[in-house]
Amino acid sequence: MNSFSFHNPTAILFGEGTLSKLGEQVGKFGKNVLLVYGGGSIKKSGLYDRVLEQLSSIGANVVELSGIEPNPRLTSVNKGIELCRNHQVDFILAVGGGSVIDASKAIAAGAKYDGDVWDFLDRKAAVQDALPIGTVLTLSATGSEMNGSSVITNWETNQKRGFGSPLVYPKFSILDPTLTYTVPRDQTVNGIVDIMSHVFEQYFSLTQDTPLQERLCESILQTMIENAEAVLENPENYAARANMMWCGTLALNGGLISVGMANDWASHGIEHEISAIYDIPHGAGLSIVFPSWMKYVYDARPDRFAQFAVRVWGIDPTGKSDEELALAGIEATRAFFTRIGAPATLSHYNIGRDQFDRMAEEAVRFGPIGSFKRLNKDDVKAIYELSL
Amino acid sequence: MNSFSFHNPTAILFGEGTLSKLGEQVGKFGKNVLLVYGGGSIKKSGLYDRVLEQLSSIGANVVELSGIEPNPRLTSVNKGIELCRNHQVDFILAVGGGSVIDASKAIAAGAKYDGDVWDFLDRKAAVQDALPIGTVLTLSATGSEMNGSSVITNWETNQKRGFGSPLVYPKFSILDPTLTYTVPRDQTVNGIVDIMSHVFEQYFSLTQDTPLQERLCESILQTMIENAEAVLENPENYAARANMMWCGTLALNGGLISVGMANDWASHGIEHEISAIYDIPHGAGLSIVFPSWMKYVYDARPDRFAQFAVRVWGIDPTGKSDEELALAGIEATRAFFTRIGAPATLSHYNIGRDQFDRMAEEAVRFGPIGSFKRLNKDDVKAIYELSL
Repeated sequence: MNSFSFHNPTAILFGEGTLSKLGEQVGKFGKNVLLVYGGGSIKKSGLYDRVLEQLSSIGANVVELSGIEPNPRLTSVNKGIELCRNHQVDFILAVGGGSVIDASKAIAAGAKYDGDVWDFLDRKAAVQDALPIGTVLTLSATGSEMNGSSVITNWETNQKRGFGSPLVYPKFSILDPTLTYTVPRDQTVNGIVDIMSHVFEQYFSLTQDTPLQERLCESILQTMIENAEAVLENPENYAARANMMWCGTLALNGGLISVGMANDWASHGIEHEISAIYDIPHGAGLSIVFPSWMKYVYDARPDRFAQFAVRVWGIDPTGKSDEELALAGIEATRAFFTRIGAPATLSHYNIGRDQFDRMAEEAVRFGPIGSFKRLNKDDVKAIYELSL
Repeated sequence: MNSFSFHNPTAILFGEGTLSKLGEQVGKFGKNVLLVYGGGSIKKSGLYDRVLEQLSSIGANVVELSGIEPNPRLTSVNKGIELCRNHQVDFILAVGGGSVIDASKAIAAGAKYDGDVWDFLDRKAAVQDALPIGTVLTLSATGSEMNGSSVITNWETNQKRGFGSPLVYPKFSILDPTLTYTVPRDQTVNGIVDIMSHVFEQYFSLTQDTPLQERLCESILQTMIENAEAVLENPENYAARANMMWCGTLALNGGLISVGMANDWASHGIEHEISAIYDIPHGAGLSIVFPSWMKYVYDARPDRFAQFAVRVWGIDPTGKSDEELALAGIEATRAFFTRIGAPATLSHYNIGRDQFDRMAEEAVRFGPIGSFKRLNKDDVKAIYELSL
């Protein structure tokens, strides 16, 4: 186990009806609130009205930024920063999924920064201050509701990048599983893949002597596998939605499940270059890329992949080598993604190899990626080839 | 899964050498520091000097309260409160195990309260304010380094009681596994039992639909079982000490592993009455009481005990009923405690049944205890009888 620091100050209010505590929570931070949300599904569902009611109960002055996109855009972030400045915003309330929360984090940091917010994404500056934010989560996937990370896309340059800061952890997040009942099937599927992929990025590690962390990772994967089909069969299954929601939050939780382990994150980088150009859902991209990455890297540590096969997928190890088990575990992962309806190949989106060179170049722009196996540009291209 | 709130703001600095960050951490909170520690083992080990060096590097004015007892005493807490008042203490630094940290929490709350600090333990008042505290952990057991709970004993009345408050979570905790190398064997054993018992109190629950929480509990138990003998064989096994330390911290972590589940905590109450009179180590008391409690209550939910037997102890379920599995799991627990050298009976300490009536009376002073099976005075007495 490596040395580590861990600090996750986000307060969680979990369960049906916890929205009734929203006003009280926001009230701790001020009156001028920027309300950030997406394409309007919260209006259809009635959530928008319930949120405004809570905000009006504390006499808040509400400014709105709507229309945050999946793969949220730098242009939206800049709009939000301007609103914060023009309206002396005290607090940012994100109502939505990971895209809305990620955009809100970038707005929170950008509003307190004199330069261009893209500097944080481009690693030219570190966040020194940020407005406080809170979230009402409507989609289980990114874990952004309880971490300090954000991913933003610059569509002028087709660059999708991330930044992280302890200063943008939400002060609170309201997690009501019933607010995810209306999430469409394909977005639910993408959320399942995203959550499991977050665990993969942490679990496949070369760090030794981390038995608790490995088991915590396996716990989330097993729970997701057990609950995924129940959620898809009945989107209003409270227990299954609640289990998925808590799995999603713990899966990417400031490192909770993998403290002291080297993380990988190459697959996320490899996927980001796909969605930065083709604007496909992040979870769908991960479903395509991850099994390819697994096949390409498993020989760096077949024993970890063998453990994955046995503990997570329940594959009988009798008479099998680590390599055989590893391949069976990867096959089980691919089969599971296919069973829940996630795409397996780039051709599903009619994506060919014509941009592979550019995408691979951009993926390694800061140097080789990953830690389980260091990947250079040619490795990344090979993984794209495996994903065709 | 029940609705829940979760908020754990403690910052963790984990690993060999993290003590070098102590000065910087304390410096955030002020100059006047109350240093709380136990019987002087930190002087023998050299830790005391290293702590003072860190404090002097930030020009801190240090007042000391030494001699905190296992099962920490109200008299010590009151001494600490007086020191805080007389020396305008800004910050309390606990260097030790759970007793030192628990005492520090009570001092932190008492220093900001006009009345008698025992009011918090006696449920006559709730904590409204507290001095900030930080910890340097020297013993893996209670989890007090990352939660808001404290247990204090009033020896005038032989009452051992607990209180909890979000205001007494440590601001930071330094967890360096090498600082636990010198913990004597019997205290290491008691720590192992204490950590596993904390998980038992949460895992044996009637709440339905909590698969992730159950697996998180099982993860800690499995990791403890895998590492216990390695720690005892070689007390300077870094990996095993580190794994035990992180298990201990997560096992009682403001509810992290069992959010949304009804907890039980009857066994802790039953044990507290033993150590409140006989001053035996808490972990030793738990080793005696817990298997007795299990035998007395398992029929409230044999399936959970069967799951425990299969997943935690690896007992083959083929052809066995839930009841058979449950009993085999309880037997495995008892055998494991005995294997690591923890006591199995009250007679080990020459404790007979003469105080059972008084102890049982006190255990249910606020009404029946436990939630897995509600226990009244006669039930508690029966569990003491099973422990003779």
